Amino acid sequence: MTERLGFGGPPVGEPVGLGEVELRRPRLKTPESFDGLFSDGRYERISHALGKAYRDVVRGFRGEFPNPPDLVASPGEESEVELVLAWCEEQGAAVVPFGGGTSVVGGVEARLDEDAPVVTLDLRRLDRVLEVDPVSLAARIQAGATGPSLERQLREHGLTLRHFPQSFEYSTLGGWVATRAGGHFATLETHIDDLVSSVRAITPRGTWESRRLPGSGAGPSPDRMLLGSEGILGVITEAWVRVRERPRFKLSRAIGFGDFTAGAGAVREISQSGLHPSNCRLLDQLEAEMFAGGAGEAILVLGFEAAGHEVGWPMEQALEIARAHGGEPKEPAAAGTGDGVEGVVEEWRSAFLQIPYLRDSMVACGVLSETFETAITWERFEGFHTEVMETARRALAEASGAPREGAGSARVSCRFTHVYPDGPAPYYTVIAPAVRGGEVEQWDEVKVAVSEALLAAGGTITHHHAVGRDHRPFYERQRPGAFAAAMRGAKSAVDPSGIMNPGVLFE
Amino acid sequence: MTERLGFGGPPVGEPVGLGEVELRRPRLKTPESFDGLFSDGRYERISHALGKAYRDVVRGFRGEFPNPPDLVASPGEESEVELVLAWCEEQGAAVVPFGGGTSVVGGVEARLDEDAPVVTLDLRRLDRVLEVDPVSLAARIQAGATGPSLERQLREHGLTLRHFPQSFEYSTLGGWVATRAGGHFATLETHIDDLVSSVRAITPRGTWESRRLPGSGAGPSPDRMLLGSEGILGVITEAWVRVRERPRFKLSRAIGFGDFTAGAGAVREISQSGLHPSNCRLLDQLEAEMFAGGAGEAILVLGFEAAGHEVGWPMEQALEIARAHGGEPKEPAAAGTGDGVEGVVEEWRSAFLQIPYLRDSMVACGVLSETFETAITWERFEGFHTEVMETARRALAEASGAPREGAGSARVSCRFTHVYPDGPAPYYTVIAPAVRGGEVEQWDEVKVAVSEALLAAGGTITHHHAVGRDHRPFYERQRPGAFAAAMRGAKSAVDPSGIMNPGVLFE
Repeated sequence: MTERLGFGGPPVGEPVGLGEVELRRPRLKTPESFDGLFSDGRYERISHALGKAYRDVVRGFRGEFPNPPDLVASPGEESEVELVLAWCEEQGAAVVPFGGGTSVVGGVEARLDEDAPVVTLDLRRLDRVLEVDPVSLAARIQAGATGPSLERQLREHGLTLRHFPQSFEYSTLGGWVATRAGGHFATLETHIDDLVSSVRAITPRGTWESRRLPGSGAGPSPDRMLLGSEGILGVITEAWVRVRERPRFKLSRAIGFGDFTAGAGAVREISQSGLHPSNCRLLDQLEAEMFAGGAGEAILVLGFEAAGHEVGWPMEQALEIARAHGGEPKEPAAAGTGDGVEGVVEEWRSAFLQIPYLRDSMVACGVLSETFETAITWERFEGFHTEVMETARRALAEASGAPREGAGSARVSCRFTHVYPDGPAPYYTVIAPAVRGGEVEQWDEVKVAVSEALLAAGGTITHHHAVGRDHRPFYERQRPGAFAAAMRGAKSAVDPSGIMNPGVLFE
Repeated sequence: MTERLGFGGPPVGEPVGLGEVELRRPRLKTPESFDGLFSDGRYERISHALGKAYRDVVRGFRGEFPNPPDLVASPGEESEVELVLAWCEEQGAAVVPFGGGTSVVGGVEARLDEDAPVVTLDLRRLDRVLEVDPVSLAARIQAGATGPSLERQLREHGLTLRHFPQSFEYSTLGGWVATRAGGHFATLETHIDDLVSSVRAITPRGTWESRRLPGSGAGPSPDRMLLGSEGILGVITEAWVRVRERPRFKLSRAIGFGDFTAGAGAVREISQSGLHPSNCRLLDQLEAEMFAGGAGEAILVLGFEAAGHEVGWPMEQALEIARAHGGEPKEPAAAGTGDGVEGVVEEWRSAFLQIPYLRDSMVACGVLSETFETAITWERFEGFHTEVMETARRALAEASGAPREGAGSARVSCRFTHVYPDGPAPYYTVIAPAVRGGEVEQWDEVKVAVSEALLAAGGTITHHHAVGRDHRPFYERQRPGAFAAAMRGAKSAVDPSGIMNPGVLFE
């Protein structure tokens, strides 16, 4: 790491062991009448105390769990979810719904007063695919099913959801719906929103279940109010989602561009063409170098897939657009590299998938590694991107004391994760020398600077990482005032005691 | 008409003239301080008293305007919208936002107590395209712009919204957003929802304006709460919408099927293929006969269009699917019929567009003509459709005293207006002998029967006609209970006096 980055390396830190963690005593007693539904075990409480943001990884590594839940409830059926909510309301305890715990925005860490007890409600036992409709290509799935679990169950029917966020292995359908997670498809069905046809949730004041319909114009969409609600209205227990046959035809190509701007021009035209590639991820020079073996060029990873027809024709149309913008398609790899995916694409894909698993090691080696993301319209993109990059580099240099350029300097790179006819969703990756022991403050400083810059330049505080507690101060400035009042009104109606995940979205 | 249908014809009724209408006296005085903002003129009040449902056309024809607004306000800028809302709240008057007045569900007719005054707020003066962003392909458009008006303004920039509901000539962008109108595209961008990137509204408690973003995952979507809100939260004043270059490549084909079920099988597979035709409208035998010169066959009207590339390839893929389901593509018309559109398609299109303009004549001739629509998942479609058709025929025979079959019987036909991977949106057209003088009661009886059948069989009370006052009793049974409470809470927060369009969506 030192060789490659100019920072990071010995001394390699050691994580604090489970037994050494100082843990606040539970402020709630496990109710005896609910046999086995609640746990106040040390491991349970600690493993539900943090999400997976850099600040969480650091704190976990150091054994810092300032806001552990007092109890963890693991209901095995919906009636037990109702029991937990009723009991918590009675006790004046906050309820934090918990899927995979992969929030990177403080979504599962209740940061409340000393005397406010917290129960984390883990959905992991509600993990089944309950019903499959092979005619309409839809499935009813419980909220606690993780990516691999639901895909395994769907595979028995030859079907797939194909929603692959980076957190795929641990995150759950319910978590995806609650946070509007972004997934596999770079165009069209970018968020889980676009794959959901009905949602069922338990609120403190009753059930919220929409009719399963392919489309409806009957009033504002009930599903769209739960999508992104981050647990403040109730606990999502299941959803009907649109699944599909596994794609039999796939093509993937890498295309080199002189710079990111030229690549962005091509991506804009492709996103406005109506060709709808499944993959359309543009990596800037640095990202291409780090993750895809690029050398001084931006790389567009372009893919098409379908279950019922060849995809050579749309790929050709998209390549033509790319060429017109100066793009140079790389030759497809020779047969035998598997899946029709060529080398560079494969390299990027495996790097992309591995990154989250390296984060503990990076903390151990004194490397700050984090991401932030947004979305912006095309006509603002260039100035926006320059401003954000500049701000990130400046803030990192200031917070890290590292040089602004050259060996040992922080790296800020960018890729588009999803694209729309009216703009891209740029995703920034930061790698910098960590201030050992002061990592959280260091990153918080940078995060505030880039968040301010994103907002000022017209972006959204999040395209698919959600709001949680970390983004809340910025989200409060972004959302419409009257809408905030309306959402508060909506929450009061179904959660009058305010027990549901207090602190996310709203103070 | 008598020859073709076996009913309708002399005596041909005459509509009641404007001067003969008995009109309730206005219960509000035009405030002098707002020069010209309000009108209590007879024509203004009468022309804002009804929508365009069959029951409205009949009542208008007969000079029955039981619920005219007391005043009509026509603000020319947003500050005047605010003035109107403030003054109405002070007066305890209800406010009915009014776009083109083309509601077919009682959306613009306030049916309140004798002593509850009503002001209709007509947006017609807010009709400009304010800003065009040719890079992101987006435009900021005022809510009162009608279809032709906004298309004319966009055409100067070589752009188009391509949202063509049947009400296109009169209906407005604001009305489309408020009611989740369905448009031109049979797949993907079926509702205006899918073309909106931000909405601005004035509520009695402040402005509601989302950031203009290509995509965002920051909390529940503020736009999606206004989409379908039917005026109960505030007055939509403008929106950013996604526009596009005018399509240069278009192909359209008609495909005959032995029956509707075979055609539906093909449409299902096409809708699940990812080919995304712009048009994919399946007409049943009767509809094909009435509107497209068909003879005993169901006809699928299939179309692809694009601005930047040929569309022969996707058309070929879709035709292949159609053939596999027994479909027989009709030969494209000879060159010179214009626009690449063949005869049968053209015939259907012009019939489709003319129908609404014939409705007064039909009332005059004693012909009941109305439509109702829904959406349902594919696996339920066949049984659902049989049940709905049967119910409609039975109810019509009972309410009309007409024979159930043969000459003089009511006609019920069906087409798909929009299709999804998980189901179609069937649209039913009814033509029957009217009970002259009792048309409203006659249709209300049929409407209740078919609505009950739709709901019982799992459909939605509306796919794109909205809820209004006519669908409300059914909508109340369809929407989730906890969601209803949440929406009430949301409304109370931004409209505490309950002045905004009372009676739609909620009692």
